[in-house]
Amino acid sequence: MISRTSLKHSEGRHNRSSVARFGEKLFALHWFNRLPMSWKACVPLAFTILLMWNIAAVAQDATPAESVKTLTVGLDTLWVMVAGMLVIFMNAGFGMLEAGMCRQKNAVNVLAKNLIVFALSTTAFWVIGFSLMFSDGSPFVGGIGGMLLAGADNSPATGDDYVGIFSSLNWTGIPLAAKFFFQLAFAGTAATIVSGAVAERIKFVDFLIFSLLFVGLAYPITGHWVWGGGWLAGAGFWDFAGSSVVHMMGGVGALMGAIFLGFRRGRYREDGSVVAMPGHNMAIATLGCLILWLGWFGFNPGSTMGVGDGSAIAHIALTTNVAAAFGGIAATIVAWLVLGKPDLSMIINGILAGLVAITAPCAWVTVPSAAVIGAIGGVLVVFAVSMFDKLKIDDPVGAISVHFVNGIWGTLAVGLFAVGPANEAFKGTALFYDDGAGPNGLAQGLGQFGTQLMGVAAIAIFTAVVSGIFWAILKFTLGIRVTEQEEFEGLDIAEHGMEAYSGFTKELMPSGTGVEQTADRY
Amino acid sequence: MISRTSLKHSEGRHNRSSVARFGEKLFALHWFNRLPMSWKACVPLAFTILLMWNIAAVAQDATPAESVKTLTVGLDTLWVMVAGMLVIFMNAGFGMLEAGMCRQKNAVNVLAKNLIVFALSTTAFWVIGFSLMFSDGSPFVGGIGGMLLAGADNSPATGDDYVGIFSSLNWTGIPLAAKFFFQLAFAGTAATIVSGAVAERIKFVDFLIFSLLFVGLAYPITGHWVWGGGWLAGAGFWDFAGSSVVHMMGGVGALMGAIFLGFRRGRYREDGSVVAMPGHNMAIATLGCLILWLGWFGFNPGSTMGVGDGSAIAHIALTTNVAAAFGGIAATIVAWLVLGKPDLSMIINGILAGLVAITAPCAWVTVPSAAVIGAIGGVLVVFAVSMFDKLKIDDPVGAISVHFVNGIWGTLAVGLFAVGPANEAFKGTALFYDDGAGPNGLAQGLGQFGTQLMGVAAIAIFTAVVSGIFWAILKFTLGIRVTEQEEFEGLDIAEHGMEAYSGFTKELMPSGTGVEQTADRY
Amino acid sequence: MISRTSLKHSEGRHNRSSVARFGEKLFALHWFNRLPMSWKACVPLAFTILLMWNIAAVAQDATPAESVKTLTVGLDTLWVMVAGMLVIFMNAGFGMLEAGMCRQKNAVNVLAKNLIVFALSTTAFWVIGFSLMFSDGSPFVGGIGGMLLAGADNSPATGDDYVGIFSSLNWTGIPLAAKFFFQLAFAGTAATIVSGAVAERIKFVDFLIFSLLFVGLAYPITGHWVWGGGWLAGAGFWDFAGSSVVHMMGGVGALMGAIFLGFRRGRYREDGSVVAMPGHNMAIATLGCLILWLGWFGFNPGSTMGVGDGSAIAHIALTTNVAAAFGGIAATIVAWLVLGKPDLSMIINGILAGLVAITAPCAWVTVPSAAVIGAIGGVLVVFAVSMFDKLKIDDPVGAISVHFVNGIWGTLAVGLFAVGPANEAFKGTALFYDDGAGPNGLAQGLGQFGTQLMGVAAIAIFTAVVSGIFWAILKFTLGIRVTEQEEFEGLDIAEHGMEAYSGFTKELMPSGTGVEQTADRY
Repeated sequence: MISRTSLKHSEGRHNRSSVARFGEKLFALHWFNRLPMSWKACVPLAFTILLMWNIAAVAQDATPAESVKTLTVGLDTLWVMVAGMLVIFMNAGFGMLEAGMCRQKNAVNVLAKNLIVFALSTTAFWVIGFSLMFSDGSPFVGGIGGMLLAGADNSPATGDDYVGIFSSLNWTGIPLAAKFFFQLAFAGTAATIVSGAVAERIKFVDFLIFSLLFVGLAYPITGHWVWGGGWLAGAGFWDFAGSSVVHMMGGVGALMGAIFLGFRRGRYREDGSVVAMPGHNMAIATLGCLILWLGWFGFNPGSTMGVGDGSAIAHIALTTNVAAAFGGIAATIVAWLVLGKPDLSMIINGILAGLVAITAPCAWVTVPSAAVIGAIGGVLVVFAVSMFDKLKIDDPVGAISVHFVNGIWGTLAVGLFAVGPANEAFKGTALFYDDGAGPNGLAQGLGQFGTQLMGVAAIAIFTAVVSGIFWAILKFTLGIRVTEQEEFEGLDIAEHGMEAYSGFTKELMPSGTGVEQTADRY
Repeated sequence: MISRTSLKHSEGRHNRSSVARFGEKLFALHWFNRLPMSWKACVPLAFTILLMWNIAAVAQDATPAESVKTLTVGLDTLWVMVAGMLVIFMNAGFGMLEAGMCRQKNAVNVLAKNLIVFALSTTAFWVIGFSLMFSDGSPFVGGIGGMLLAGADNSPATGDDYVGIFSSLNWTGIPLAAKFFFQLAFAGTAATIVSGAVAERIKFVDFLIFSLLFVGLAYPITGHWVWGGGWLAGAGFWDFAGSSVVHMMGGVGALMGAIFLGFRRGRYREDGSVVAMPGHNMAIATLGCLILWLGWFGFNPGSTMGVGDGSAIAHIALTTNVAAAFGGIAATIVAWLVLGKPDLSMIINGILAGLVAITAPCAWVTVPSAAVIGAIGGVLVVFAVSMFDKLKIDDPVGAISVHFVNGIWGTLAVGLFAVGPANEAFKGTALFYDDGAGPNGLAQGLGQFGTQLMGVAAIAIFTAVVSGIFWAILKFTLGIRVTEQEEFEGLDIAEHGMEAYSGFTKELMPSGTGVEQTADRY
Repeated sequence: MISRTSLKHSEGRHNRSSVARFGEKLFALHWFNRLPMSWKACVPLAFTILLMWNIAAVAQDATPAESVKTLTVGLDTLWVMVAGMLVIFMNAGFGMLEAGMCRQKNAVNVLAKNLIVFALSTTAFWVIGFSLMFSDGSPFVGGIGGMLLAGADNSPATGDDYVGIFSSLNWTGIPLAAKFFFQLAFAGTAATIVSGAVAERIKFVDFLIFSLLFVGLAYPITGHWVWGGGWLAGAGFWDFAGSSVVHMMGGVGALMGAIFLGFRRGRYREDGSVVAMPGHNMAIATLGCLILWLGWFGFNPGSTMGVGDGSAIAHIALTTNVAAAFGGIAATIVAWLVLGKPDLSMIINGILAGLVAITAPCAWVTVPSAAVIGAIGGVLVVFAVSMFDKLKIDDPVGAISVHFVNGIWGTLAVGLFAVGPANEAFKGTALFYDDGAGPNGLAQGLGQFGTQLMGVAAIAIFTAVVSGIFWAILKFTLGIRVTEQEEFEGLDIAEHGMEAYSGFTKELMPSGTGVEQTADRY
């Protein structure tokens, strides 16, 4: 049975009106002059005492400070939890997007990866990752005292009142469980980005192990540098919601995976030209994109980790949405001009590119700047997809072009478009310059851009090395790639013993878009 | 790195208990009589001063008025943003519904339309639409000073304290960015309604251009009449969340599009009978319906644009849900009786019909009235679908029957079922009569019904003319319809160079439901 | 036109700073000594009066008690409504999961059931169910005075201030409409659980009638025992969010339905071995699982029916998520070991098993306990699926294994893992021991476990009898099973006259997973 007695509502029965009425009556002062002097002195004293009691009564009923504090913490926590839920729901978006863009013979495998990866991320981040990222440690890595969410913490105490081992998160006044929940959702995103680039050829068990290592060890370290009070934060590097910390970082893991795995069999002809391997279900791919769009309203505005007067949330949601829209439109136009058709997968990737690009700067740029950032992201993604294909880096869903390329772009865009803390006009539009700190844009010189560039390079190189080591170990122990026969018949039967669309007649060699049948036998 | 110092929590360390304890000690007054007279006078003064300091300290810590104001604005903004996110997610609902109800050969096209349309809506409404709808202007159209969200605005100041050019929205105490975000979500809905009715035969580029014009120019003008302080608002026309402003208006654009385009080839036999062109994926169509049901909980309850004590949100969500349920049940029964089977697409459309119908009256009617309104909507939609087919107005997904017909019905229902501002019993159930203004129902006479009828006619006629002009211009410049060959092979290959379900064996001529194969060669 | 004047924001223009400044000036006291004695006495009086006016002005502006109360009710209501929306969205999750795990020839039927069932639940619970469950009555069933939400109720008044007929819900300070909305979402879940177990062979009309009876009569009675102030609540039985009240109860209805219906034709060979009847769309099944995961963040944390300082919501979301993760991982490992492959449907069911199991104890257990509870749930579900197949109880989606088996497990787990109200360390982590009441775990003895066992047995037996009666009446009046011919050709054509995937080439006898073709002709 549910029971809750602690959420009492203050009643305030003795209220202001009794105070006011009492004051009014004091104007009838003629009786005062008739009193002896000693009494005259006593009268004000008596009134003072009366007044004190009255004030005490008012205060006791209202207890505004305590109630308002509880409400503030409650409201902040509610928002962070809802935002975290939206971000966790992005797993459905990534799952549908990746499954839809792969071939039906690998759909079960893709779906299984995307489903189990958040379970693995939960485990890895709870056991060790969160502690390495946010608990007090060196500028290079957090401590291990916060494993399994252990360690002292008096959240929701904030600032100087905070006593605990997660001081890098003491700026937000929500319970530790809420901080973890939201950050866990982010950690899960980093792992799921990798999934798309390695799809259709990786062994299931390797992806599981890589995910555990990636979320438990790699992501938290670079994350600590930026959000855990590490050396990049100290150097003045700014990434509001994770263009670099989450997306580029995940994109590097994806890139390394695609390189270590090699391309899918049949993907490139001998002359280097690309054999189209079209996705098998554009309906769920589109659904995935729209779920991700929704999830980003948790990702970016939720990174406030509080509500305040709501203006930051509203501003950030707006820049996020505008960047997504302009990314999608720009990619559509470019694809139409360059490829000759408004390709649906390019519309999808353009929207996602805009979203990834605005993730770092969303809180510090104007809405028109967001439009520009998103549009450039949409252009970049179209050319990036071609570029990686020319390099024979095979990425079935375009994850590297979306997350790696635009993660870099978005992080650098902070140094170009941020209005800067000195910008008076921007105050009140967003919370994030109110304390006089924050990134500067090009109008204040190239310094910020240089810092952003340095940070991007540091995170990319470190992640490339670490994830490279992970992939290498896996390759030389378990082997990371399925056999040729398994790849031909599909990972669904080979790895999972089932097919995704039982009862439908399928073609192993998809037709319909001018694909050369001989080359596309995989 | 995230940083937030402005969301301080008031601490209230010097609190009521110290005041109270201080007062208690004052009752030990025997020392007072031993003081010289001059000192006696000073004692109360000293206490008064002490008290003042104490009060100042309490006030400084608690600052209840400011904190409570920030909390109220924050809570209101949070709700409006979450509601706006739910409405934006309706794009996924419309996309899945429309794609699922069309044939697989046109699925990519339908998905692309539904994905890009919100990007286009964002652009058009940001650049010009929002300004035309909500900024100060004439009774017939808003101004252009609010283009790109420019123009003076001191939100969240409300009522008389508001200073700015968006005075039609000064009743809600949320930041301008939040007002825009929520209204943008609505504008996007109007455009996406059109998509369904023109599916499977419209050229992609025409739909894009029409959407820009529709959201940027047409929707804001009639919207201004009702929600922007225009002449219909002045005339006492009421539409709470947009049965007319959004749904009927979008439905008129859809109707005009279907008329200008003509029916799909093969849709009607020479004797006028209908050739079934069944949807290709009822799973995603059903998912779409359930996403829309969810989204409507943002659409209707979110139109409060504030929380208050929550009772309005709860009441509106309840009327919305009950109308959806009764719409679905009524359509199921009627379809069972009339068509012989509980047709799934009719269940879907019945639910949507109930939702559209309750949108205008949701805040002003009782729950039983909502059930009646929804049930009538569910009946209407079944017959409307047949009616439009008899008129050879071909609407692949039933958008006109759902949004146009039930948009009218819902708007008129306000004049029938509204309890009226004089109804004491209803106060406290919903916020929306607390100021003594609002629509009357049949119990107070037929006046409101007449005003609603007039408003419906005005919006419908204006939108028909304007969207007719748009369609006509497009038809005689670019041409709006794909070629016969393209229609036969499907818009996916013709317009986008890809197919939605690569790897599956498809039949150009769907079987299974007694369709005459010769007539259905398209 | 939208209009809202009642949500005024307190302004607080006369504020603390004027009080403080006034106090500072009083220190310039040299003028005081020059006054005659009588005036000297008057001065403090004058200041006291001035002070009173100032205080009255501050109090009038702030009105903290009323504003804070409204804010608290508003925030609580907002959370409960959002949580209710998430739970209602679980209908999409159940619909996609069940449809995807069934064969394509029955997909329309499954979708139609899952769509209309919430409409029916809304009707049944509004008309009678809510009243039987929550209005004042006997320990065995509520009254009928709350039918159609009628009956006295002064919510959001709470506790002793509550005057009305729904006193079992007077612990939460939200409007009655919000209480109903949230509880309705739960009632709908109970009905939809049944759907999966009876899929692919039940007549549509029987399912509709059963759902009405189940939600209107059966669910509310056992629900009343636990959450409506009935005899199980009195006996010290605890179920926080419904492992027993919702999931096991729905699972019993599902079990009885599967028994009454018998297994699908061709499901078992003569030697008792199982013929695989693989789901037709694992993409939407996986999507369904992820939607349910999201929805559970409304289901469990929303059962707080309030926000407080947010710590309970955060804690419960965390235990819920960890249990889901460990359920999924455990089921994956067990399926890999036992079945030889990481079966996707087992990953899905493992996650759901963890979610069902944590539903009862989520508020009263530590995060590590949640991991254990979830993991055991994941193990249980794999073996339960095999067990029911050995018993020839045919459950196409595993609903009985997920909801019945793990509903029992979760309810019992309360008696094992609850930290108990005496546990000081847990206070502040969750709200739900703050009043000193709540379940004990094994550390405090076996008493609680015994009570939980008794409650589980009582609910299961009662529901088995009642739903058995429902099924029996339906079987002997309308007949509950489709004909052999209808089952062979699929319920979609037979019951609804349409197919789910028009335009795709289908195989009546699915291939690909070693299925014996002769046995699988159904």
